[in-house]
Amino acid sequence: MAIELGSNRYGKAETRVVRVVRDSERHEIVDLNVSVALAGDLDDTHLTGANDKVLPTDTQKNTVFAFARDGIESAEEFGARLGEHFTGSQESIDRATVTLQEYTWTRHGDHTFSRGDGGEHKQATVVYENGRPDVTVGLRDLLVLNSTDSEFTGYIVDEYTTLAPATDRILATAVTADWHFSETDVDWNKAYTAARTALIEAFRDTYSLSLQQTLYAMGAKVIEVLPQVDRVTLTLPNKHHFLVDLEPFELDNPGLVFFAADRPYGLIEGTVERR
Amino acid sequence: MAIELGSNRYGKAETRVVRVVRDSERHEIVDLNVSVALAGDLDDTHLTGANDKVLPTDTQKNTVFAFARDGIESAEEFGARLGEHFTGSQESIDRATVTLQEYTWTRHGDHTFSRGDGGEHKQATVVYENGRPDVTVGLRDLLVLNSTDSEFTGYIVDEYTTLAPATDRILATAVTADWHFSETDVDWNKAYTAARTALIEAFRDTYSLSLQQTLYAMGAKVIEVLPQVDRVTLTLPNKHHFLVDLEPFELDNPGLVFFAADRPYGLIEGTVERR
Amino acid sequence: MAIELGSNRYGKAETRVVRVVRDSERHEIVDLNVSVALAGDLDDTHLTGANDKVLPTDTQKNTVFAFARDGIESAEEFGARLGEHFTGSQESIDRATVTLQEYTWTRHGDHTFSRGDGGEHKQATVVYENGRPDVTVGLRDLLVLNSTDSEFTGYIVDEYTTLAPATDRILATAVTADWHFSETDVDWNKAYTAARTALIEAFRDTYSLSLQQTLYAMGAKVIEVLPQVDRVTLTLPNKHHFLVDLEPFELDNPGLVFFAADRPYGLIEGTVERR
Amino acid sequence: MAIELGSNRYGKAETRVVRVVRDSERHEIVDLNVSVALAGDLDDTHLTGANDKVLPTDTQKNTVFAFARDGIESAEEFGARLGEHFTGSQESIDRATVTLQEYTWTRHGDHTFSRGDGGEHKQATVVYENGRPDVTVGLRDLLVLNSTDSEFTGYIVDEYTTLAPATDRILATAVTADWHFSETDVDWNKAYTAARTALIEAFRDTYSLSLQQTLYAMGAKVIEVLPQVDRVTLTLPNKHHFLVDLEPFELDNPGLVFFAADRPYGLIEGTVERR
Repeated sequence: MAIELGSNRYGKAETRVVRVVRDSERHEIVDLNVSVALAGDLDDTHLTGANDKVLPTDTQKNTVFAFARDGIESAEEFGARLGEHFTGSQESIDRATVTLQEYTWTRHGDHTFSRGDGGEHKQATVVYENGRPDVTVGLRDLLVLNSTDSEFTGYIVDEYTTLAPATDRILATAVTADWHFSETDVDWNKAYTAARTALIEAFRDTYSLSLQQTLYAMGAKVIEVLPQVDRVTLTLPNKHHFLVDLEPFELDNPGLVFFAADRPYGLIEGTVERR
Repeated sequence: MAIELGSNRYGKAETRVVRVVRDSERHEIVDLNVSVALAGDLDDTHLTGANDKVLPTDTQKNTVFAFARDGIESAEEFGARLGEHFTGSQESIDRATVTLQEYTWTRHGDHTFSRGDGGEHKQATVVYENGRPDVTVGLRDLLVLNSTDSEFTGYIVDEYTTLAPATDRILATAVTADWHFSETDVDWNKAYTAARTALIEAFRDTYSLSLQQTLYAMGAKVIEVLPQVDRVTLTLPNKHHFLVDLEPFELDNPGLVFFAADRPYGLIEGTVERR
Repeated sequence: MAIELGSNRYGKAETRVVRVVRDSERHEIVDLNVSVALAGDLDDTHLTGANDKVLPTDTQKNTVFAFARDGIESAEEFGARLGEHFTGSQESIDRATVTLQEYTWTRHGDHTFSRGDGGEHKQATVVYENGRPDVTVGLRDLLVLNSTDSEFTGYIVDEYTTLAPATDRILATAVTADWHFSETDVDWNKAYTAARTALIEAFRDTYSLSLQQTLYAMGAKVIEVLPQVDRVTLTLPNKHHFLVDLEPFELDNPGLVFFAADRPYGLIEGTVERR
Repeated sequence: MAIELGSNRYGKAETRVVRVVRDSERHEIVDLNVSVALAGDLDDTHLTGANDKVLPTDTQKNTVFAFARDGIESAEEFGARLGEHFTGSQESIDRATVTLQEYTWTRHGDHTFSRGDGGEHKQATVVYENGRPDVTVGLRDLLVLNSTDSEFTGYIVDEYTTLAPATDRILATAVTADWHFSETDVDWNKAYTAARTALIEAFRDTYSLSLQQTLYAMGAKVIEVLPQVDRVTLTLPNKHHFLVDLEPFELDNPGLVFFAADRPYGLIEGTVERR
């Protein structure tokens, strides 16, 4: 029997950096949570504890802050710049994965901003390897809801079936979506807005016979509007809104009162690809 | 020695009710998390387990759903209606506290809506007793940030002081605010918007010498704009943004790169009152 | 109209201090999350931003770390020591509230320990005022479950009732408990263990006709075993375990298969007092 | 341009089932959170909304409850039984992934149990395909800490380095581990205990020159003690405990007082394999 080291990586996770742009009285802020993961020739530190090929995670954090000094045009560009640095400056590092969560603030004045604590945010992942970045961008925790135009009928019935068909239901989900770019000559901030709009509009405009159908429509729409995107992955929990039975109280309930359930929930996962 | 029952209450917490208004093709949705707590003549169930004065929490949940059928004009009105019902219909119940968290959705079409999963929300508390409601309204998890116009100097220096005075810092907090109404003849939805705007504008317009000073300004502004409010309570964590020392990397940092820390944090709590 | 400052306090929340005792090869660790809140003559900082009576929260954090150097016999003693310092050394501070969450580690060797990330923990609150500490101790997030010996029958039936009486149900709750001491000449660590055991044993030994009855029994038992305790406050969510209807699948279900629900839940709150 | 459906799956997530064994007065409880994900011939529901090959997630939930009626010997066996059912009974389903989180309760009597709300738990994943289960077992949220016998020195120094070498530090991590079985003729409950013990003992017994070295030792030990395991994947956040500088207060700090930081943190990920 032999025991061997398999794939591995390490880095500093969740460095919370806020960059203020104060070139004029009208400040801007960029608010990121940056995670770095490096891979390469790292057998020694695992097998003998020799760290001469290890760039400390503390140094990675310092690098994030130092690079932020130069300005952050977009999360994608910042991630690529960090990835290029780590792979280019360290012989032992072949691949750098930089994951950046970005929180959007709403302006209320020259230097005043607000946002919800939690809620929807953007996530960009840049994998830097062989001298070039591979970019995936996505969003998290965006709830969308259609109060009608959703059915679920015609499914398999077996001995464990108790569900009644629904011809008019609420369809609600928390969108986790990631779209992969086949190139990097992209206006990142514009592309993000376009993808987000495409997801919401496809959700809105699909008369849904299943959440799977809606998922496919959402992914396809992102591919349609962004020519540089070749793949969209979606994870859509079916956040069930159950129509409450009000008959015991001598009340009807024509699609008016719903119970929003937590668990269990349906979970629909799928990828839509450009071929 | 005697052992006795002190104050007590019970109820159904966190009934998640979504009410759709479909009077026309343009639907509306009201999304609430409703908690009920009842108090009164409840010694028996504690001391002997006799439940003949106990309205089950399951029934309270049913009541929330049944009352939602009639429509929900505002969280405040809905809470008052529930409180009146529980105290009015049950001889054993003297006081009903109804707490309602409300989540706001953004419209994207006739029946399509979105919101962040998590983040800022409204919270209304209605205490119904002696035939009348007592209403407190508030908000939770609203982050606000000023990127300048904040100082902290002139404080006590003792043997444990290491903090350097700051003459230009980021001031950021997650607002928890509750404002109490001295009457109930109020346009609730309009009042909420006015209070929220007052909080943000007071935060924005205060050149801050301490977060306490900003807290007072925020509370005072709500009282100024809402004549029916007699008390505002605020809980403001000082969400520290530390200027990163970039000197080791031969970079200056004139208020540009900050580390957003999690814990520990300052916590400022205070009440502002109309006299 | 006049606007005035009401009650207020401020301090450093959630300083995470770990104290290692290394007097011998067999180390000990004390793991605390310490929050300080100070109250006193603080009008100036609210009204004018003058901070000359403000001990910075940063200094409070430093003090927590410096005092930990001397050793931490118990959370209660450490909180009292800090409270005495803040009120004794600062003329402007009348009252110091020190809240300490304590995480318990399991030993696996001379210097190796484990614990769950999250889960049950102790919480002590020391209010130091007028030269003496007032101590409340409690626990959080302890789940307890009886798989039988629980009923719920004989309750009020009204027009919104659909619940069927239960003569044998699962009773489960997440215990939040706080017991207040009328004196401070206490072996704190021993008292904590005794109170925790009392809560679990009373839960176990009560044939329950309502969760209220169980709550009272739990509070009473703590008062019985700890002569220095004069008040116990309990918050007990009724974590519903619903018997699943298996009849559609031609199976019986004599108390075997349950669905553990999240929301809504019953919430029972009460205080038991020594008179 | 063509747009196509890529890999996809769907199912019911987080069905919370509690199974009581009441064959004697001494009850047992099994507490699971079960997620099912099915894959197969599912193009139609994505492309046209035709659901005739879709087994509803509601039915999957019902099946979990119905199968629990027969008893749950282990999470692994229960997952395999469900996977066999879904793939065997539905022509359209080729692969079923059943993920089971298991919560362990401590006994306090014949029918009384406790556990922390949150904290460490087991996770088993069974992928059922081609008529056989593929089993991976793991644990989550187990914190382990060594208060000495950990160094970090000899690392790369570059222009962004500020970290000082540490020759005696606290090493703490929250273990996420998964070990894959090459066969299924296993005493699952016994194997879990052995793996958990191996992880803790390897953490304890490794004088650590890097967390990577400790990770490798932990994985190797699981492979050593369990002959049916061929792969162990570990994700270990380096939960930094920073020695507090007490010099400004004229105190030394020989490894006694630490600040337990939240973010950022190191994150070490690696796989150890039997060859």
